[in-house]
Amino acid sequence: MHSIMLSKGRMEALTDGIFAIAMTLLVLELKVPDLPKSASAHELLQRIGEEMPAAISFVISFLYCGLLWVLHHMAMHFIRHLQFALVWLNLLFLMSVSTMPFSCGLLAHFLRNRVAQEFYFGNMFAASALLALQWLVARNKKLINEDDPQRSQLMGQQLMFFPVALAAGLVASFFNPQAGSYAFVIVLVAMRIWQRKWHRKNAANP
Amino acid sequence: MHSIMLSKGRMEALTDGIFAIAMTLLVLELKVPDLPKSASAHELLQRIGEEMPAAISFVISFLYCGLLWVLHHMAMHFIRHLQFALVWLNLLFLMSVSTMPFSCGLLAHFLRNRVAQEFYFGNMFAASALLALQWLVARNKKLINEDDPQRSQLMGQQLMFFPVALAAGLVASFFNPQAGSYAFVIVLVAMRIWQRKWHRKNAANP
Amino acid sequence: MHSIMLSKGRMEALTDGIFAIAMTLLVLELKVPDLPKSASAHELLQRIGEEMPAAISFVISFLYCGLLWVLHHMAMHFIRHLQFALVWLNLLFLMSVSTMPFSCGLLAHFLRNRVAQEFYFGNMFAASALLALQWLVARNKKLINEDDPQRSQLMGQQLMFFPVALAAGLVASFFNPQAGSYAFVIVLVAMRIWQRKWHRKNAANP
Amino acid sequence: MHSIMLSKGRMEALTDGIFAIAMTLLVLELKVPDLPKSASAHELLQRIGEEMPAAISFVISFLYCGLLWVLHHMAMHFIRHLQFALVWLNLLFLMSVSTMPFSCGLLAHFLRNRVAQEFYFGNMFAASALLALQWLVARNKKLINEDDPQRSQLMGQQLMFFPVALAAGLVASFFNPQAGSYAFVIVLVAMRIWQRKWHRKNAANP
Repeated sequence: MHSIMLSKGRMEALTDGIFAIAMTLLVLELKVPDLPKSASAHELLQRIGEEMPAAISFVISFLYCGLLWVLHHMAMHFIRHLQFALVWLNLLFLMSVSTMPFSCGLLAHFLRNRVAQEFYFGNMFAASALLALQWLVARNKKLINEDDPQRSQLMGQQLMFFPVALAAGLVASFFNPQAGSYAFVIVLVAMRIWQRKWHRKNAANP
Repeated sequence: MHSIMLSKGRMEALTDGIFAIAMTLLVLELKVPDLPKSASAHELLQRIGEEMPAAISFVISFLYCGLLWVLHHMAMHFIRHLQFALVWLNLLFLMSVSTMPFSCGLLAHFLRNRVAQEFYFGNMFAASALLALQWLVARNKKLINEDDPQRSQLMGQQLMFFPVALAAGLVASFFNPQAGSYAFVIVLVAMRIWQRKWHRKNAANP
Repeated sequence: MHSIMLSKGRMEALTDGIFAIAMTLLVLELKVPDLPKSASAHELLQRIGEEMPAAISFVISFLYCGLLWVLHHMAMHFIRHLQFALVWLNLLFLMSVSTMPFSCGLLAHFLRNRVAQEFYFGNMFAASALLALQWLVARNKKLINEDDPQRSQLMGQQLMFFPVALAAGLVASFFNPQAGSYAFVIVLVAMRIWQRKWHRKNAANP
Repeated sequence: MHSIMLSKGRMEALTDGIFAIAMTLLVLELKVPDLPKSASAHELLQRIGEEMPAAISFVISFLYCGLLWVLHHMAMHFIRHLQFALVWLNLLFLMSVSTMPFSCGLLAHFLRNRVAQEFYFGNMFAASALLALQWLVARNKKLINEDDPQRSQLMGQQLMFFPVALAAGLVASFFNPQAGSYAFVIVLVAMRIWQRKWHRKNAANP
């Protein structure tokens, strides 16, 4: 009954809206320095320079949200229609996107604090995992358009990259903060290489 | 004259926009702890832990707004076209949605305070009652698509669940705060059971 | 050249977005009372009661923005296509809508202050005047669909109601604050009566 | 593979959303004066008057964002379909739009400070340059509809106006703050005159 009533269009409109707001609220972490109006150019430059960690964490978070939005956008092309389970998973996904400004603010303020780092990467992981979970549920419920099975498999693989790499990074960072970043990059690159090989083999003998 | 001029599309666009913003503003209640940048991981974790009530109230509010959005979304499928009364009721409904961040912030800060609880549940009640009222007005004005009368009746029943259960909870909570939660859950479950029976009976002999 | 390139759809999307945000930001004027977490229910209720002026100014502003949105929505049905002049007038209109949260906050804080009142009503006047101006410019440039000339004349008249009544109120309030409210209501009612008569006469002998 | 999956519609929805929010957040720089509720009309007027720089910087920023939105809107009409490079350039463009409230706040607070001025104009330059870059990349990848080559060339020229004029202003302002404004205006006017001549010549002998 419900599949007809849940239109992809409005789900996408809510998704685009929440992404637009979360991405714009990220910048609220950049605060106008609290200096007297007569502050010298040098003083102001120095204080803006001190906000570098916040600025970097803003840029990374904005681009990561952009990436999630692109992946969501692409994945939705394969979904034939929605069902309740997908709508609720998407709302949970949007919830994890809407907490990004908080996690980003936490990291910007406590850049070298392990709790802030794990919170931030945990938030990134939750968002990408909920996006991947939507795909798995949709595939399970036969809601994915399989006209071109190789393309939809490639899409599914791409959605797994970030949750797996972020999970590897999170686990490794319990032993050593730096190991976390290494593990994240190594897993991401390894998956990409494996996907290329898999793609070439399948393209050769379909 | 006006029915042709009030397009469902723009009403939905404004609705999706206000929901997206209200849901994202909810997270502003989660504040980055006001600690020195050199705070230890332990201190930060403890301070984040103290925000648990705010986090729980954020999660519940986000999911409740999501639920209202899904119900609005589904109900709009049955509305053939808009009239002024519906547009204004929808604006009042959106007003009650836009106050959710305030009520949620109030509850997050004064979790055990009866006034905050009643404000919060009163806001939830107002939102769901205004949504149900739209349906009643639309039915009264014959604006509902009755091609499949059983489906539209089911939809109408579903819209009544939350205002009735929340009203029961609010009334009971005047006698005893815990009775409020119990009354809410009992009424919600009772209505669901009754609806299933009603649905089975009607499906059997239509 | 440009008329084809300026789509009504995207102008409406930006308009709906700015309305949705301005209307939701209005509520930020309602502040969670700055009391200790252990405050009694009585204390909290009293402090919330003190925010009544802010709450009233929020409700009025929300409904007024809703009214402007409904008028914009209806007027756009008559516009055949856009031109640069209309796009820029609409951007100025949106600018006056986006300052409503500021004017509303000013009035909420300084309810009995004449400067705050004049700022608030001046903002309301600017918004409704810019909306009416769009109509006049569109009519002048023959961009209005005149298939049903009486309906489009009614629409044009309706757009004049608020700027004229608000201007009367603003002028009268320079002499006496209360005279402002009276003038506003009298002019609004007078115009509505005049429009009904005009409409009946035209419907009788078209 | 991807060109089909990246729909212009959703990219425009995200763009409209981020513009709507950034333009509305600009107004948050206008702060309700921190005076006691009993402040006299005179005092309030004076304090609002002191916010003039913030108000001017708000108006300019709002109109500049409006201009970028109009240019983006018009340019998108020429783009036949999207590719990844364009999506990511557009996300970078949106990032530079989302930082406008911060740059605007900085300028509002430190109006005569050279660092604030350069930050603000640098942000304006980045936004317009990223918009122009999208056009250049799209042209390079043959994604631009050249049905009417003169119109698309005019569009491309128009997109170059602001980044070039702002770059001239920024360079000149390193020598002398006032020279910056002069250089900006001179270059803008010169380009406009040159474009008119070029347009007339091409229209004469196509």
